[in-house]
Amino acid sequence: MHYTTLSLLFLLMLYSSSANSQDRPRESGVIIGVLPTGTHNAITDVPGVKVGHTTRIRGKSVRTGVTAILPYDGNIFQQKVPAAIYLGNGFGKLAGYSQVEELGNLETPIVLTNTLSVPTAVEALIDYTLDLPGNENVRSVNGVVGETNDGYLNDIRGRHVRKKDVLGAIANAESGPVTEGNVGAGTGTICFGFKGGIGTSSRKLPESLGGYTVGVLVQTNFGGVLTINGKPVGQELGQYYFKRQIEGSADGSCMMVLATDAPLDARNLKRVAKRAMLGLARTGGIASNGSGDYVIAFSTAESLRIPYSPEKRTLTQEVLHNDVVSPIFLATIEATEEAIINSLFAARTLTGSGHTVEALPVERVLQMMDR
Amino acid sequence: MHYTTLSLLFLLMLYSSSANSQDRPRESGVIIGVLPTGTHNAITDVPGVKVGHTTRIRGKSVRTGVTAILPYDGNIFQQKVPAAIYLGNGFGKLAGYSQVEELGNLETPIVLTNTLSVPTAVEALIDYTLDLPGNENVRSVNGVVGETNDGYLNDIRGRHVRKKDVLGAIANAESGPVTEGNVGAGTGTICFGFKGGIGTSSRKLPESLGGYTVGVLVQTNFGGVLTINGKPVGQELGQYYFKRQIEGSADGSCMMVLATDAPLDARNLKRVAKRAMLGLARTGGIASNGSGDYVIAFSTAESLRIPYSPEKRTLTQEVLHNDVVSPIFLATIEATEEAIINSLFAARTLTGSGHTVEALPVERVLQMMDR
Amino acid sequence: MHYTTLSLLFLLMLYSSSANSQDRPRESGVIIGVLPTGTHNAITDVPGVKVGHTTRIRGKSVRTGVTAILPYDGNIFQQKVPAAIYLGNGFGKLAGYSQVEELGNLETPIVLTNTLSVPTAVEALIDYTLDLPGNENVRSVNGVVGETNDGYLNDIRGRHVRKKDVLGAIANAESGPVTEGNVGAGTGTICFGFKGGIGTSSRKLPESLGGYTVGVLVQTNFGGVLTINGKPVGQELGQYYFKRQIEGSADGSCMMVLATDAPLDARNLKRVAKRAMLGLARTGGIASNGSGDYVIAFSTAESLRIPYSPEKRTLTQEVLHNDVVSPIFLATIEATEEAIINSLFAARTLTGSGHTVEALPVERVLQMMDR
Amino acid sequence: MHYTTLSLLFLLMLYSSSANSQDRPRESGVIIGVLPTGTHNAITDVPGVKVGHTTRIRGKSVRTGVTAILPYDGNIFQQKVPAAIYLGNGFGKLAGYSQVEELGNLETPIVLTNTLSVPTAVEALIDYTLDLPGNENVRSVNGVVGETNDGYLNDIRGRHVRKKDVLGAIANAESGPVTEGNVGAGTGTICFGFKGGIGTSSRKLPESLGGYTVGVLVQTNFGGVLTINGKPVGQELGQYYFKRQIEGSADGSCMMVLATDAPLDARNLKRVAKRAMLGLARTGGIASNGSGDYVIAFSTAESLRIPYSPEKRTLTQEVLHNDVVSPIFLATIEATEEAIINSLFAARTLTGSGHTVEALPVERVLQMMDR
Repeated sequence: MHYTTLSLLFLLMLYSSSANSQDRPRESGVIIGVLPTGTHNAITDVPGVKVGHTTRIRGKSVRTGVTAILPYDGNIFQQKVPAAIYLGNGFGKLAGYSQVEELGNLETPIVLTNTLSVPTAVEALIDYTLDLPGNENVRSVNGVVGETNDGYLNDIRGRHVRKKDVLGAIANAESGPVTEGNVGAGTGTICFGFKGGIGTSSRKLPESLGGYTVGVLVQTNFGGVLTINGKPVGQELGQYYFKRQIEGSADGSCMMVLATDAPLDARNLKRVAKRAMLGLARTGGIASNGSGDYVIAFSTAESLRIPYSPEKRTLTQEVLHNDVVSPIFLATIEATEEAIINSLFAARTLTGSGHTVEALPVERVLQMMDR
Repeated sequence: MHYTTLSLLFLLMLYSSSANSQDRPRESGVIIGVLPTGTHNAITDVPGVKVGHTTRIRGKSVRTGVTAILPYDGNIFQQKVPAAIYLGNGFGKLAGYSQVEELGNLETPIVLTNTLSVPTAVEALIDYTLDLPGNENVRSVNGVVGETNDGYLNDIRGRHVRKKDVLGAIANAESGPVTEGNVGAGTGTICFGFKGGIGTSSRKLPESLGGYTVGVLVQTNFGGVLTINGKPVGQELGQYYFKRQIEGSADGSCMMVLATDAPLDARNLKRVAKRAMLGLARTGGIASNGSGDYVIAFSTAESLRIPYSPEKRTLTQEVLHNDVVSPIFLATIEATEEAIINSLFAARTLTGSGHTVEALPVERVLQMMDR
Repeated sequence: MHYTTLSLLFLLMLYSSSANSQDRPRESGVIIGVLPTGTHNAITDVPGVKVGHTTRIRGKSVRTGVTAILPYDGNIFQQKVPAAIYLGNGFGKLAGYSQVEELGNLETPIVLTNTLSVPTAVEALIDYTLDLPGNENVRSVNGVVGETNDGYLNDIRGRHVRKKDVLGAIANAESGPVTEGNVGAGTGTICFGFKGGIGTSSRKLPESLGGYTVGVLVQTNFGGVLTINGKPVGQELGQYYFKRQIEGSADGSCMMVLATDAPLDARNLKRVAKRAMLGLARTGGIASNGSGDYVIAFSTAESLRIPYSPEKRTLTQEVLHNDVVSPIFLATIEATEEAIINSLFAARTLTGSGHTVEALPVERVLQMMDR
Repeated sequence: MHYTTLSLLFLLMLYSSSANSQDRPRESGVIIGVLPTGTHNAITDVPGVKVGHTTRIRGKSVRTGVTAILPYDGNIFQQKVPAAIYLGNGFGKLAGYSQVEELGNLETPIVLTNTLSVPTAVEALIDYTLDLPGNENVRSVNGVVGETNDGYLNDIRGRHVRKKDVLGAIANAESGPVTEGNVGAGTGTICFGFKGGIGTSSRKLPESLGGYTVGVLVQTNFGGVLTINGKPVGQELGQYYFKRQIEGSADGSCMMVLATDAPLDARNLKRVAKRAMLGLARTGGIASNGSGDYVIAFSTAESLRIPYSPEKRTLTQEVLHNDVVSPIFLATIEATEEAIINSLFAARTLTGSGHTVEALPVERVLQMMDR
């Protein structure tokens, strides 16, 4: 058996080990928060939102990937969506911040990948946008790309993400259930000293509070003192910040993407984005010095689309009054907390670049939760 | 003749010397910018906006006052206006910043006064608001009060502004022409080493650009290298930062209040507010370390009023698209520049607290401008 | 027995009922976090920091007060301390923000009180500062005053805090143990639907991480879904946001004051301040729309004092490298969480303005914690 | 003569037409401001700073390039410099903002290029940094890249800047005089409706104010109402915002890079950066909606270098007191204003992508200035 076959087999093993056969926490009885989830307990519960992954696992050292989030199916550049980015801790390389902050909108899909592949992903978003029908005269594109550093398990200096991986993640994007764990941009990440990855969750407000859906997707690669639904899991497992931390992984990052169909303008989206950090806090995250913690929030409300070529001077918008946003804050906090925990439950032990990071021992954790 | 009569006479003299008989620069041929002004070349050209002053001149050392700007005639607390505050340089004591920033609206008149009288003015705004019919259950008021330091000509430590002075300025507020110079909050201020004060100006956009009006009112108390419509007046008069600066006056501040009837939301109002600093720059202002330079901007557009007790969850708003705000930026820059120059032309030589500050030698300046 | 005697007796009863005889959570076995506390588990564990209270309870409706925090014993105006303020949610009336943000320092004690008494407290801080020996020529004072709204239990519209109450709290300030609960600025506050108040806590880093102390003091008046050290206490007691919330109290605020002897400059103090919100999140706080959540952080490191009248152009500073601040972040999160819980354990059932707010049922809660 | 020779000749012609033979404004008697310049009136007057250009002119449509600014000669990643970025108007694609904002330092050279080539430039900065001796284990690089949109004269969608162009600009970087005009990142830019480009200027403070040097380099691609040293040149030439504006060029951007040897920490560097916008204002810039106006400021003070691998927990720094920064503000304003005007004087008429943009008619302008 020659080498290629061997590595194909290896790949296959890796792949299957990254599959998402495990029950999600909620299905195992870990009920986070007081609000109900949407149908799939995923960011895709917000109507129109799609998620796609490209997972790059090759040889002994390539453990990385791309995750793309599409606000809706269409030409986002021509009909932008209101958006905001909150800098939880700005030690990161996120692309696209200042224009979203200034103009209050998003004009590309959101892409997540590894730290050193941000320029490749921005380049791909430019390709994607210039090539869309109707964008023939576009000469300026604000690609929004987030990242975390997977350089412990992945040969990050090798920059193994290619433009086609990014374009593939966009092309693959689907509504419905979202694969979690060692997938896409979460392929090589580490969280609280365990294998991290992609996680997602959602909340649906009661009709009396507007009936809006809030969905969150996270790429977890950060540290702290892990708490699962209030239980001091990190301490009980003897794995937390200050104690037995993996070299190079203490200072990872967390990317949080938040979608809602609530008609929020950029100002209130920024306030909502800020609350995602409170969800992260509830898992024991501390937003350490080296953690690039960013929250990108957008509204899919059709009435709030911002045309690239407006026909008239004004936009007629129906936006939420400040007074009614608090339930959306709570939904954001709960969905973020659960999305992070979901990423940990779904992730599998992974070896790469000569290092192995163990998955969270889910069975043991569930026993702790039962006590 | 006993002392009281003497000081009354003195007061009278002071008052007459602060009267505004001088032509405004524009009437003397100093045409700043390319856009036309509104009817009164004043912030009150924005329909509904009113301005009131209380001037406190007493004895040898009281040289201070209050200026109030009302966005419209009505209960602002119950029907708030969209607003933003830009911190040009935050060395100052402006009250009310964080709530305007967070909620994007203004719920009281704007009051300007001296640095140490800010709490008195906030207290008065609370009184004013609690006492308005309909506000019987109000338990929280975000008074917005700006200030500059008139402590060179005024006994600022004596805190001679009283609540009734603030309430008086609000009660006196009128539409139409606005008194400039040594009046209200500008009574004791110094600008570029000359007597500063209150100034105002406006711009009206052509109908093709929306026909909106932008009005600016300033309280000038700052330094730099004075330039009037491009002429290096400060250098020619040998009076500028680094050279012959009045002790204690170099580091004054500039409060800028901007009103517009353009339907701008808080985000775009903040962008507009930011441009007022560019107008200040064109007069030679440098926003020195000790200068508290703040811009408070609001929109009077009726469709953007924010009810305190909303009847439904959403607000239906007609707001300007980002793409059409640039003309408002230009209008802001021009009106701010002219308002500052207007304050200098209107101000009169004043003696207080043992110091005298000369007025700008307007005749000489006009000769320079003619060359 | 005439009326005055009666109300004196009533006052006495109230007072005794607000006394702090209850064990603090930690003494009852509720151990929050992984780091050890300082000696008193209080903000005063940071050497030099002092805290003073004035409690105003009178008749049936006055239930308010003042809490003052002094960074050190001396003329703070002449030797300022590095400081930062983080706006967790800016729906509040905190005074002094922009100057701290711009200059990176604090020049007065920090005062906490009720929403409508902020101007009185600022006025008192001006008095205090102008009257300090050495400040005879001071003409500008940036008083930092935070607030929460106690208008459910207190006749807040009556503005019963007087300047002497503020000056008294400053004069009373002491090092050592800090009274918690219904005291000072926490007299009339409500937290998670229970009686809130003042709470404090501290953390001491191991010598290997610098040995620094972080102390936090909070004024709790906010809502959400109460979690105590991870236990869903709010849900178990059937008292949480969305369910059985006290009218008018859901949208309260939280003031957090953070002191440290770690040599942090203003930039890193702001980052530290930001982490206090993560501590609040861990108690179930959601930073609701109406919550004014502010964190004021300062460093007491003597080498970082900023002279009002510098002798030379430069300051020689020894500041922490970014890379070593993460342990201070963790300490901040833990101390904030514990300070909030401490405020709930110490507070007592209170009646005022015709309303009664029950104390947290501590015994029952401790039973829950034991399970 | 075949095609290649023809296009070589064409290139030669273009090149010579972009040469900088014209006197700079100051040499023609246009003296902007009151402070003296450094030796070369360039950003390179700040000791250690180097500038390099790559100019890409090819065929009929490639008119673009790269400009690199090096804070000092050495491994910037290992010994970072204090830095800040001010968002004058965030409609742009600048890379690297959030990390500079969070950590207060810069770890790569600064690169300027066209809008759609930002990812290529970031990629090149990653290559550059990973390849530096001593950086073998680096897995995270925050490349700072600014841009303006040269899509009117340049085939920007073709993305003709290659990594080697970026690395070349860095490798070419020199101290001493800096080429201005149609060079590097300024090759295809437009300013006030005339050909823009690269410009630079400096100011040197008198020894009594510290003797510090401030240098500014700009990439000018923006609009407004051109004013040269106070003269309404745009109006006199009938070329200004609202009137005869080039399609697609009104909303360009301005990148400003500021270097100083003054020992400023990140907080004061941000304040300095903010003042560069005041310099832009003095040329008639209005920071229009579509203008991406960014200021990147850094200090070369050796005592403020921030080691990547610190030997101890603290840094000993000698930083300027707030009170003495105002002269640096004035120097910044003047140098920015002059750098912009310098770019206009140096730029030459250019044809590209089927459009021609005329140079500023310098002779005629100088005649206006003389009047």
